Order: sequence, then C-alpha cells, then structure tokens
Amino acid sequence: MIVVMNHCADKKDIQAVISKLEKTGFQIHLSEGVERTIIGAIGDKTRLGSMSLEAMPGVEKVVPILAPFKLASRNFREENTVVCVGDIEVGGDAIHVMAGPCAVESREQLMESALRVKEAGATILRGGAFKPRTSPYSFQGLEEKGLEMLAEAREATGLKIVTEVMDPRTLPLVAQYADILQIGTRNMQNFFLLKEVAAMDKPVLLKRGISATIEEWLMAAEYIIAGGNSQIILCERGIRSFETYTRNTLDLTAIPVLKHLTHLPVIVDPSHAIGKWRFVLPMARAAVAAGADGLIIEVHPNPSEALCDGPQSLTPENFRHLMDEVRQVSKIMNRKMPDA
Amino acid sequence: MIVVMNHCADKKDIQAVISKLEKTGFQIHLSEGVERTIIGAIGDKTRLGSMSLEAMPGVEKVVPILAPFKLASRNFREENTVVCVGDIEVGGDAIHVMAGPCAVESREQLMESALRVKEAGATILRGGAFKPRTSPYSFQGLEEKGLEMLAEAREATGLKIVTEVMDPRTLPLVAQYADILQIGTRNMQNFFLLKEVAAMDKPVLLKRGISATIEEWLMAAEYIIAGGNSQIILCERGIRSFETYTRNTLDLTAIPVLKHLTHLPVIVDPSHAIGKWRFVLPMARAAVAAGADGLIIEVHPNPSEALCDGPQSLTPENFRHLMDEVRQVSKIMNRKMPDA
Amino acid sequence: MIVVMNHCADKKDIQAVISKLEKTGFQIHLSEGVERTIIGAIGDKTRLGSMSLEAMPGVEKVVPILAPFKLASRNFREENTVVCVGDIEVGGDAIHVMAGPCAVESREQLMESALRVKEAGATILRGGAFKPRTSPYSFQGLEEKGLEMLAEAREATGLKIVTEVMDPRTLPLVAQYADILQIGTRNMQNFFLLKEVAAMDKPVLLKRGISATIEEWLMAAEYIIAGGNSQIILCERGIRSFETYTRNTLDLTAIPVLKHLTHLPVIVDPSHAIGKWRFVLPMARAAVAAGADGLIIEVHPNPSEALCDGPQSLTPENFRHLMDEVRQVSKIMNRKMPDA
Amino acid sequence: MIVVMNHCADKKDIQAVISKLEKTGFQIHLSEGVERTIIGAIGDKTRLGSMSLEAMPGVEKVVPILAPFKLASRNFREENTVVCVGDIEVGGDAIHVMAGPCAVESREQLMESALRVKEAGATILRGGAFKPRTSPYSFQGLEEKGLEMLAEAREATGLKIVTEVMDPRTLPLVAQYADILQIGTRNMQNFFLLKEVAAMDKPVLLKRGISATIEEWLMAAEYIIAGGNSQIILCERGIRSFETYTRNTLDLTAIPVLKHLTHLPVIVDPSHAIGKWRFVLPMARAAVAAGADGLIIEVHPNPSEALCDGPQSLTPENFRHLMDEVRQVSKIMNRKMPDA
Repeated sequence: MIVVMNHCADKKDIQAVISKLEKTGFQIHLSEGVERTIIGAIGDKTRLGSMSLEAMPGVEKVVPILAPFKLASRNFREENTVVCVGDIEVGGDAIHVMAGPCAVESREQLMESALRVKEAGATILRGGAFKPRTSPYSFQGLEEKGLEMLAEAREATGLKIVTEVMDPRTLPLVAQYADILQIGTRNMQNFFLLKEVAAMDKPVLLKRGISATIEEWLMAAEYIIAGGNSQIILCERGIRSFETYTRNTLDLTAIPVLKHLTHLPVIVDPSHAIGKWRFVLPMARAAVAAGADGLIIEVHPNPSEALCDGPQSLTPENFRHLMDEVRQVSKIMNRKMPDA
Repeated sequence: MIVVMNHCADKKDIQAVISKLEKTGFQIHLSEGVERTIIGAIGDKTRLGSMSLEAMPGVEKVVPILAPFKLASRNFREENTVVCVGDIEVGGDAIHVMAGPCAVESREQLMESALRVKEAGATILRGGAFKPRTSPYSFQGLEEKGLEMLAEAREATGLKIVTEVMDPRTLPLVAQYADILQIGTRNMQNFFLLKEVAAMDKPVLLKRGISATIEEWLMAAEYIIAGGNSQIILCERGIRSFETYTRNTLDLTAIPVLKHLTHLPVIVDPSHAIGKWRFVLPMARAAVAAGADGLIIEVHPNPSEALCDGPQSLTPENFRHLMDEVRQVSKIMNRKMPDA
Repeated sequence: MIVVMNHCADKKDIQAVISKLEKTGFQIHLSEGVERTIIGAIGDKTRLGSMSLEAMPGVEKVVPILAPFKLASRNFREENTVVCVGDIEVGGDAIHVMAGPCAVESREQLMESALRVKEAGATILRGGAFKPRTSPYSFQGLEEKGLEMLAEAREATGLKIVTEVMDPRTLPLVAQYADILQIGTRNMQNFFLLKEVAAMDKPVLLKRGISATIEEWLMAAEYIIAGGNSQIILCERGIRSFETYTRNTLDLTAIPVLKHLTHLPVIVDPSHAIGKWRFVLPMARAAVAAGADGLIIEVHPNPSEALCDGPQSLTPENFRHLMDEVRQVSKIMNRKMPDA
Repeated sequence: MIVVMNHCADKKDIQAVISKLEKTGFQIHLSEGVERTIIGAIGDKTRLGSMSLEAMPGVEKVVPILAPFKLASRNFREENTVVCVGDIEVGGDAIHVMAGPCAVESREQLMESALRVKEAGATILRGGAFKPRTSPYSFQGLEEKGLEMLAEAREATGLKIVTEVMDPRTLPLVAQYADILQIGTRNMQNFFLLKEVAAMDKPVLLKRGISATIEEWLMAAEYIIAGGNSQIILCERGIRSFETYTRNTLDLTAIPVLKHLTHLPVIVDPSHAIGKWRFVLPMARAAVAAGADGLIIEVHPNPSEALCDGPQSLTPENFRHLMDEVRQVSKIMNRKMPDA
C-alpha cells in the first residue's frame, strides 16, 4: 500500500501516518520527493479494511498495490479449479452448455424445453422457480412447484439442474432440488446470501452484478471461498453502459481477464446480456472463442408465449443451430463438447 | 403501448399481434404508414408484464407509453406523502437531517456522535449495526449489540434511529430497535426483502441502487407500496459512472425529477456518493437548493480512527458548520429547520 | 413518430400539436385513451430535426419510430457494401488485418514493423503521423515526415496505408499519402471533418466515439454518405464504462447489431479497447467469431521502447501467433484470409 | 510514479526497469516486499508520456502519483484566475449568467432574446452560429450571418457574446465577432482546435466532454494554457451515464472538486445537461449553491418554434423567475449579482 501525502502535509502529519501503520504491523518505506512525500507500507493487506488513513490530516490518497482478493486469486492457486456437478466437470476439458427457459411455467413447457436442449447437446437445464422481477406485477415464479418440475425433468433427461436462489430462507428448499445454486446479478453483493451458499456443499453459479467491476465480482467469490465453498462458476452476463440498443453490454474481455486473475471457471450468458434472440448466436460463438468454459442460453418452445424474457429466448431449432456453430469453435479451442 | 412492426412484417404477422392484444383485453388503433405499420394498444398496463410481444414474428420493437409504476406515481396521488417518524415529519414543512457514524463501533463513539449531531440540529441518528462490506475481511458490524447501543443513544438524546436491514431473517430484530428501516443500495432490488418491509408498519428509507434508473427505483418503491406500506423516503446516494475522482456521481437532478414523478419524499446522502469529506458540505447545500426534503450525513468523532468509511466522515465541528450553511439555504427554499 | 400528451393536456393543446404536424406535411392518427392521448404522425422523418414538439404545452414525450439514419441503413441498401482499397476488398469474402505501430517513430521502427506484419499476413499497414494525445507533453507525431515513411513502407512491402486525419487543414496532405483515411474516436462527431472526408474519393475508417451509441455512430456515417462518400469501414474500439481494469469495454455485440442495421463493413480494434497486449489475442479471435470483417492491431518491434501505447502493442512474434489463431476462426466463418 | 512488479518478476526484470528510469533522470526508491517488489521513481513527470514501462517484462502496473496537469493546477497557482471579458470578471466576486437561444435563427428571435435576458440580469448573450448536430439533416446554423446578428445584438444591448467555434478554419471569422470562444463538448479533445484557441488573445469557454473525466478535462485546459492562453472558463454540462430520463447526468460535484484542483473559474449549463426545461431552475439554484461562478442558460422567445433544442429552453418569463431565485442563492454564497 502506498500513502501519498499532499503537498502541504508537514512532518507531524507524516509521522502520524507512519506511527499508525507501524502500530498495525506494517513495515515502512519512506520516499521524500520534491513535491510529495510517499509512504510505502508492506504487510498483511487484510488489516487495511478497518483503517481510515484517507481521513488523516495531510493524506492525499491511498493506493492499494495488491488485489484485495486472496483465495480467489490465481496467485493463491495456480491450476484451474474444476467444478464437479455430478459427473460433469465445468472448467475441465469440455465446454458445457446450460439451457432452458427463463422461468419454469408448466410441466409441458419445461419438459419440452428439456428434451429439446438435451437433444442438441446441452448438459445442464436452466429454469427459474423464484424470479427476480423489476415489477411487482410481473410473474414471480412457480416456487416449490417449479422446483418439483425441474427435478422431474432431470429424472426424465439426465440433465443437471441450475436454478436461482434469492433468499436465505428458501435456500434449504432450493438446495434440495438444484445441482447448481445460481446467485443472480441483483444478489451478487447480497452478503448474507453469499455467506449461506458458502456453507453449502454445492456448486454455485455466481453471476456478475450489473454494475460490478471485475474486482468486486472476485470479492463476492472471495466471500464464498472464505466461507468454505470453492466450487464456484463465474458467469458474465453483461454490464450496464450508456448503450441502449442492447439490454446490457456483454463484456467478453472479462473472460481472458478472469483467466489471468483467478483459477475459477467462467461461463457466459449472452441471452440476458443482449435481450434480443437475433444476436445470441454470434455472441455465443465469440464467447467460446474468447476462452469461456461454457454458456448459459435461454431456450423456450414458443418464445412469444413466454411469461418472462421471450424476446431473448431461442426456439429449439435456433438453439440446435447455435450448438452446431459453438461445436466448431470449441474444436479450434481444443475443447471437447458433448455430441448432439 | 405501441408495437412497431418491422418493414418485412406481412398481414399475417400484424394480425397475430392484434389478436393476441385483443385477447388480453387491449383496444387497438392501427396506423399503416409507408415504411412501417404501427399498432397502438390501449388498456391495463399491468397485463404487459407477462406478454412477450417482441418475440413474435415481424415485431421490431415495443414502446411503452405509460410509466410502469402506478401507486408510487404523482398521477395516482397528487399531494406529497409525509412520512411520520414519531413526531417528526419527513417531506413536510421542515428539512430533516439524519447524521451519525457509518458503523456503530462502541458505546462511547456512538454516544459522542449522537450528542454532537443533536447539538448541531440533526433529528435522526444514523449508524450501521449490520454492514454490507465489499470485502469479507472488513468489519461487518456489531449486530444486536450495535442495535442496543442505538436504542440507548435514542434514550439519551431523543433522536430517532435509522439503521440498515440486510436480511429478511434479521428484519424482526432490527425492527424492534429502528424507527426507520434502511434498505441499502445493494438491496434496492432484493425483492424478498422489499416484500418483507412492505408488511411492516414502519417507515422505510429506500436508497437508490448504484446503477438503478429512476424508473427502476420507483418500481422498487412500488413493491413496498403494493405490499401495504407507503411510508417510504427515497434517498439519492450517487450512481456509478466512468468518473473515478469521486466514489460515485451524485445525481442531484433526480430530486426535481422525482418531485415531478412521485409523491414520496426525497433526501440525499452526499457522504457515500462522494467518498471524500471535503466535498460534502457544498453538495449538502446544493441538495437542499435542488429541493431535497432532507439529508443523511456521516459524522464521526474521530474520522481517522473509523472502522468504516472514515474518509467521507465529517468531524462534529465540520458537521456544525454544514448545518449552519444548510439552514441558510433552507430559508430560501421556505423550509423550516430545527434550531441548533 | 408518436407524440404522447400528458394527462393534463386539454383539447386546445392537442389541437395545437396536430395543426403543427399537419402544417409540416405529416398525416395524423389520433388515439384517445383513458389516461393519455397519443398522436401518431406519419411522414418524412427528416423534417423532425427542426421541430421542437416537446416544448409545446401538454406534450409529455415524443417517441421516434424510425431510425434517424437513412443512407447508412440496411433498409436503404440490402446487400453489403464492399470497400475497395486498391485491389483489397474490405467487407468481401476475406478477413483483412491492418497492423503496425501506434505512432510512426522512425524509418527503422516502421520498416521493421511493416515487414513483420506483412510476413504474418496483414494487408494494410497502420501508423499514426498525427497523434491525438490527452497530454500536451506527450509525443504528437512526426507529421509529414511520418507520412513519407508510411509511403516508403508501402513502396517496399505492397501494404496499403491507413493513417489518422485530425484537422480539415491537413486533410489534403494526409490524403496524398493514405489509402484509407482514419477518423479517430475523438473526432467521430467533428462534423466539419466528416463533411470534408465526405467530399474525398477515398475510403474512410470511422472509429466509434468513446461514448457514442450505435445510432450516433451510424449518424456520423450518414454525414459522410450524405456528402457523397459511401466507402466507409466502421471500427469498434471500445466504449467507456465503469470498469477500469481494461482501458475501455470492447462492445463486440455491436458487430452483429451493425450487420443487422447497416450495409457497411465492420472491423475491430482490440488493442486500443483493452490497453493490455495480453488480452488482445483472445479478443481478436472473438471479434472474428462474432462476425467482424477485419481487425486492426498494434504491433511494435519493441513495445517497451514505444513512444505511444506500448503496453497494448504486440511483438511481431505475438502478432504472428494471433494471425494463426484468427486464420482458424475465419475458416469456421467461411471467410478467406491471405496466407502468411 | 510507482512501478509495481508482478510476483514472477526476477532480478533481471527489476534491474531493467530501474536502469530505464535512471537513464531518463528519475531517482529510485526500491521496496522489496514478500509478495511484490515496488519501484518508486521521483522526477519530472512530463517525461512519463513517452515511456512504455507497462510493456516491460515483469511489470504489473504503473501508478502515477502526481496529477498529469501542471499549469492548470491549484498547486501551480494558488489564487483564483479571474477571466476578464471586457469589464466583466468571470470568477470574481460576482455570479455571471450567460443566456440566449441555442441557435441564432433570425434577427427578430435573437434581438427579442437579447433584450429579455438583459432585462432579467444576464450579462453575456449566448447563441450558436455554427451548430454541431448529430444529424446531417438538422439545421446547421446561419454561420457568418448569425455572427453578424450577434454583433448587432451586442451593439443594441451591451451584452457580451459567447458563441461556439468548431473548426480551425473558421476560428479567425468567429474570433472577429465573439467576446468568448466556446469549445463545445464534442471538441474538448479536438487538439488542433485547442492549440489554435491557445494562440488567440481571447477568453475560452471550455465545455466538458460528454464522457470526459475531470482529469482529461483539465488536460484539455492544460493544452490551452501551455499554448499561451490562460483565460479559460470551465463549463460542466452533464456527462453520459446509464440514466435516460434526463439527457445527461449533471455532475455538480465537479464544481467543488475543480475548485480544489484548479484555479480556473467554473460555470454550469443545466439546459444541455438535462434537456427538459422543467428541471433547469432547481438545478441552476443548486449549481450556485455548490459554488459555481456562473451559469449558461438557454432562453428562447418561443421554445416550441425553436429550430434547435426547444424542449430545454426557458421562456423569458421562466428565465426571469430563475434569475430571481439564483439571486437569492448568490447572497448566501456571498456573491454579487447584477440587478435585473
């Protein structure tokens, strides 16, 4: 950590900062320049959280040197984490695709979706039973009935299940049914929920917050790992920018950046990022070309009848086409993909 | 609602949209232009949520005409909502200032803060007992002990208490102590938590999500009103932009915009928005000049020892100065303010 | 165009809007709903520019229905525009890669760069002679000497030349040397410069403004086409978002969106978007997988000695590796690429 | 400047960075921590521009310590710069308001505007003769005829004239008529134009770029001062964020931040920032309460007939009301304001 003193800081101010840092166990390097004095502090960064150096007289700014995440960092663990979902390995040799409807609406809708995405090569079924909706007047999900239908579809197809958990109180219920617990974009910094999934022995799909920096996202992962669960799959799903033609701005560069910073696997959700089905296929291809370990795609047997997010859902035919294209890209990337 | 068909939509596509809308109870106005056909649909907007018109063949885009919030809207209720916190009226004639430390750290720190902000004219004491922190290694709050200290400070000073609730499971506990329940920026779209505070008979301070549009913010308020609680104070606390010199970008224009769109009172939190104490005073003045009903300000007896957010906390002396300045602006605005 | 009247608009307000629109030659469709009156106006959109309907009494908002660009639109011209740069066709069957240093620094540096990128399969040499620099103290380019070196490198290698023009006064000079005139991100809305390049008989590389929406970008292209030059290559180069780990946020979804909205070819500049050479290769692969017609890549024989943007420049070895990878992706996309 | 080496950097990498810095004349302070080696470099920051340290092997990041602007900095010049426009002092004791139509449309429109804003207490007349317009089909300004009308209005009223210059070629013409040369938001980084106005002996109104950080904005001012002209008025006019209810997000916090960082005067343009006349008055009040030295406000005798930006223009009556309110705020700020 570097503490930059402002140009009117006097000896007393500088000494006060040094004393405070030394008391907390930091080792000090002092550089006195013509215009500024700079104090380097070397020591355990986890102590920084509870120090308010910038409020001390004469301090201009505090510049952290090390990333604030530790357990999630590639420095801490060099080899890739492979997340096991039963016999499926996310982050291993193969690209895995999760697919299905935004929301579970009925047995027929879900079963039809499950069969069709399975046929096309998906290995994991997505579907929301609890739905976070901007409007209180929108469909909020079938809740436990939806979870039961997901379990039934798993039974029938062998697909694993990923579904969202929104509330610590319903986590035990969701965990009974889900193979992967999804933390949605609005809950990426719901720290109590993070602490609860950290205590579970189940893989977690951690979506990026809609305006989360990569560092904040890795700090959310750090909460889960620090709580005991390192079976985390990161999911890029678009960030909020000024551009309104697409629903959000898909930040594919986050994929190689994450591969550099962390050992955790990364997948991409182009459907939610873009909000228009027409552009999902090329961006799925691009995501895998950028190094993603998998995809999560919305598929609905009849998008125009969907109770949620129809405009971004693929028909089963379009999804099959997407899988064919992604399969070709995965070969170039030296990744396997289950046959259709 | 306006449905714009794309230029290759044929009669069949147009008829399908019309049939779907008519079946849902909308009345139709059709405009066939040279380049586009446009379908106007008049009816109950709350039905829109569960229709995926944009996924229908030939549909280019759907343009909503009415705002999606209803109960929170100024059209629904013309006069201002005044939120009563005991004998204090937020949104009434007077400007109210909430002040205190970011986090409750100790009896001494809190009591000292409470006495000093009371002296300067604050009427409500702020202080976090449960703290949302980006890092799992940062101080997470004193929890119930913190709540007890807040109650003690209320006892000693007569100040009302505002404190954050982060989890539906601890809501009953927090509600035992708090006069106002604060929903923080990270929980503005924690819909289960919104539904729970909606069921309480207690005022809610609803902070704007860090990347929430004004419309999304009012939809969060709509959740709470629709659930039965219209005692809501909106709090602008800065949004995320590309500018990094300040922690966030304080969007003061949101104040007159909200006054136009909704009947709910609006206060401003310059401390969190800016992150640097030096700029809090002028922006507090500006907030009241823009029409805010109050302020929430971080004050710490010794900012450089603060366990949380010291750099943005005012000393009691600086806070007293701020109150003097704000008092002058409130006179111009024809608003009262409690004497110091 | 749809004019939404607010709920207190009276008959007189509505009639005034209708009269004004009819006088301008629009045909009117009136929809009187319970809560709102809506006025649809059908006619020539280019008249809208000079009307201030939103300032009329009773008007709540004006919603445009058609895109504001016309000549740049895919509706206007269905087939792809192919931009001919001598015998090279950008936007045709082949993927073309432009490569070279950020700035021309010396004959040696440029010639070495040119030979190495040519060897690896690039067909166009990039290099700035006039450099837009945030700081007045940074290297501003070699100006005419730099242009002469570019011409010399073209002579020696057969590569075409793309270089930036920043000022209408030096446009004739730059145009003497360049095969493609680059309009940089800071000049995307320098409308006088756009009008001047519109009058030239030379291809234009139009970079996206750092905070330009796709619509604004296409309006900049519209300026050039309306002025008589439709030989335009669009270049996505990252937009400004809150994320600071990368220099900008590369918006690859813009590629399929542009392919849908316009007939103009689209290339991608991952080097400037990202600012770190390490992530350029995967994003080049992703850009082509998303449907880009080409790439522009910074290559420097010795990045750590570069006078400009060294951190994002590839070494010639890394560039050769990038080209090998991109060549594989182009096969999947059924695009040709010149052999190395 | 601090160079942070990555954790696999070896002795050779570290030595190479040190040698390079020492050769450029920097003095070195080395801190070898357990996890990272950090190299502090003290010396003339203007040499940094041409060094690509981040491209050297083993370098993780380079952290600048001093701001990159020098002549524009409050450290360089402690007292406020007062910009003299004839006998008017911007940045002195008095608040000055510039007002008038977005574009000069006719003699009648301009003269009527000039008389009315003068009556209400404005001291400077604004009006565009050259207009930057997103669409090539929108009204582009009356050019020299517009300038003549501005001169005539000055003659008749005694108001000073501020008008935009967009092109180095028309600068001599504009400078013949204008008292203040306006650099618009789209030209804040048009560096050739900056260099030209730097060579003029005339005050410059430098608007913030729509997505410019405060630092980039001050670097644009640095270009002008470094070129010889320090008569610069900075103008905050809203930045681009995700919020779409207002045209841009007015960043009033920039005012006290600029007062801290620079000696240059700062004014605010709420009309362009917000885009809706209804919210201009409260934000004008807030701007002065935040410490602005002045305002620039759009006023049109008949906003709904305006050829440009009618929706954000005030009627003369509304402007008079605004001036009354601003006058009250200026008293609190201990600033004078010309009587109406």
